[in-house]
Amino acid sequence: MKKHNFSAGPAILPASVIKEAAAGVLELDGIGMSILEISHRSAEFIAIAAEAESLARELLQIPADYAVLFLSGGASGQFSMSAMNLLNENQSAGYLDTGTWSSKAIKEAKAFGKVQVLASSKDQNYNYIPTGYDIPAGLRYVHVTSNNTIFGTQLREFPTTDAPLVADMSSDIFSRRIPLEKFGLIYAGAQKNMGPAGVTLVIVRKDLLGQVDRHLPSMLDYRIHIENESMFNTPPVYPIYVSMLTMRWVKAQGGLEAMERHNEAKAKLLYDEIERNPRFQCTVPNPQDRSLMNVTFVCTDDADTKPFLAAAEAAGCDGIKGHRSVGGFRASIYNSMPLESVQVLVDVMKNF
Amino acid sequence: MKKHNFSAGPAILPASVIKEAAAGVLELDGIGMSILEISHRSAEFIAIAAEAESLARELLQIPADYAVLFLSGGASGQFSMSAMNLLNENQSAGYLDTGTWSSKAIKEAKAFGKVQVLASSKDQNYNYIPTGYDIPAGLRYVHVTSNNTIFGTQLREFPTTDAPLVADMSSDIFSRRIPLEKFGLIYAGAQKNMGPAGVTLVIVRKDLLGQVDRHLPSMLDYRIHIENESMFNTPPVYPIYVSMLTMRWVKAQGGLEAMERHNEAKAKLLYDEIERNPRFQCTVPNPQDRSLMNVTFVCTDDADTKPFLAAAEAAGCDGIKGHRSVGGFRASIYNSMPLESVQVLVDVMKNF
Repeated sequence: MKKHNFSAGPAILPASVIKEAAAGVLELDGIGMSILEISHRSAEFIAIAAEAESLARELLQIPADYAVLFLSGGASGQFSMSAMNLLNENQSAGYLDTGTWSSKAIKEAKAFGKVQVLASSKDQNYNYIPTGYDIPAGLRYVHVTSNNTIFGTQLREFPTTDAPLVADMSSDIFSRRIPLEKFGLIYAGAQKNMGPAGVTLVIVRKDLLGQVDRHLPSMLDYRIHIENESMFNTPPVYPIYVSMLTMRWVKAQGGLEAMERHNEAKAKLLYDEIERNPRFQCTVPNPQDRSLMNVTFVCTDDADTKPFLAAAEAAGCDGIKGHRSVGGFRASIYNSMPLESVQVLVDVMKNF
Repeated sequence: MKKHNFSAGPAILPASVIKEAAAGVLELDGIGMSILEISHRSAEFIAIAAEAESLARELLQIPADYAVLFLSGGASGQFSMSAMNLLNENQSAGYLDTGTWSSKAIKEAKAFGKVQVLASSKDQNYNYIPTGYDIPAGLRYVHVTSNNTIFGTQLREFPTTDAPLVADMSSDIFSRRIPLEKFGLIYAGAQKNMGPAGVTLVIVRKDLLGQVDRHLPSMLDYRIHIENESMFNTPPVYPIYVSMLTMRWVKAQGGLEAMERHNEAKAKLLYDEIERNPRFQCTVPNPQDRSLMNVTFVCTDDADTKPFLAAAEAAGCDGIKGHRSVGGFRASIYNSMPLESVQVLVDVMKNF
């Protein structure tokens, strides 16, 4: 039976990418060796890394004054690394608290400078995106989580402020166009929209660096990774390779504009059924706060929860059990998820 | 033509592991999904991670008072993380300086406490392992690089001291038996003897932790990774999977005792030819300092260098060009390198 992978991450990858990724493990492009066993200094991998950077630049329209890095350690590593590199002890940064990952970013940043929580939706179990809050002038940066994987909310618009934005885009990078000029730093763990687990995309405006007083260990200093073109140490070769293949696929689909349309169509199909079907309810009341990536919903009658999960699994829908902090269901419908798979889930809902 | 992969790292993996690793990308064990797209919280990956830990414990005979972690960031990340977790500012640690990686470890550690370089072979371009140096009592730890990938030297014996040893074993982990009880911390980037690039094995004696005064970011705190069984954040799923397959292979070969015999036989074959053949010379004068993993040698007449490299490449020997700090040649003959491939290189030398 065909599986429809609704996992929140590590998550579905395009079927064509999986095929190429498997072929590269057996033998990379006819060179007589596997992608797993070639040097990161080999001509073959240097070309792969360069193509990955160039695809990221092209898809997100990243200008030359920004560096593009492929690091390890995930977004969780970036929570501290970003603050360590950007924020002096006597400086203030604003943080928007929209979920578990925002609050972890806040916790890590507090060790390095003054953290102002600009607004929080914690009072309603993070089921909305705060609006109408003030952003004081003169902050070093304003940190946002663009999409909240656990709570099914997404920032459709980004705050306007005199400070550069720093964003954790782990769960919606490459899913839509973004106003890049607003951002000083963007980081994203690969394992939702970019590739397999094990690599983190970092996009940073270079003029923001080199302004903190503290000692930075080499591995945690963006400048050192920039000088060494992400090869200060052995990079995660295979995760970068598969991310490059995935970005190639995004480009072939028509780039971020096409991804956006595709993601909107999938999300509409699913949210429309949740709205129409009295047996289900979206956990995010305000339609404009709803994520195009992670659709969270519950059964109106809790007695339906187990049977519906069983029905969905019987139809091959994998990974739709909700996160324990929300309950119910979460259908993650990242870039690589085909409309047909969302239709399968919607059909289960209709027939339930 | 069959390629013989003598790359220093990322490096050769067993042919059977490459096959299984490719199959897992297409579909993991008949579950209908790729290893690249399953959740790190799935039953399948939890079992893989548990088997990886259990194989590491079995192969290296790691007792229960040591934690076994699979982290990202490579050995370069461990240079600072180990010092940050173990060394207070007013404490001293001893470092043995045996090459480029030792000196990088020294540089990173200096930011966190007092670093005493116990001995150095820098005076001879790191072509020997120092002996006869004193180790003062009362050091917090003594750091060694067990094998020096670039310079072709290896610590056949480990120092005896009242302090626990901290060792970078990136390039010889699982290649031989080690006296584990001497070590407080062992770290090893996977990409030589354990798997593909992107994961780092860390073995740490738990009672050494929690004794520093400084703030540790969560991602850099071994205790947090221990509490979360290496799943504080999304781990590098695929590099861990392939490392597990490689450890299974090591076990199937007979474990570390068998690896040791196999590696000694391969190294003997190559060093014997270097000794016998007047056109070649080993860059490490003292036979007992010579690495079983990385065999470094030059042509006695430099005019032979280019033609010999061409002859070796024509025979399918890939990656034998020496590191720029040593010149000449470096044949890396890690666990997965078959004796037959070493024989191919030796035959090229004989016929040259």
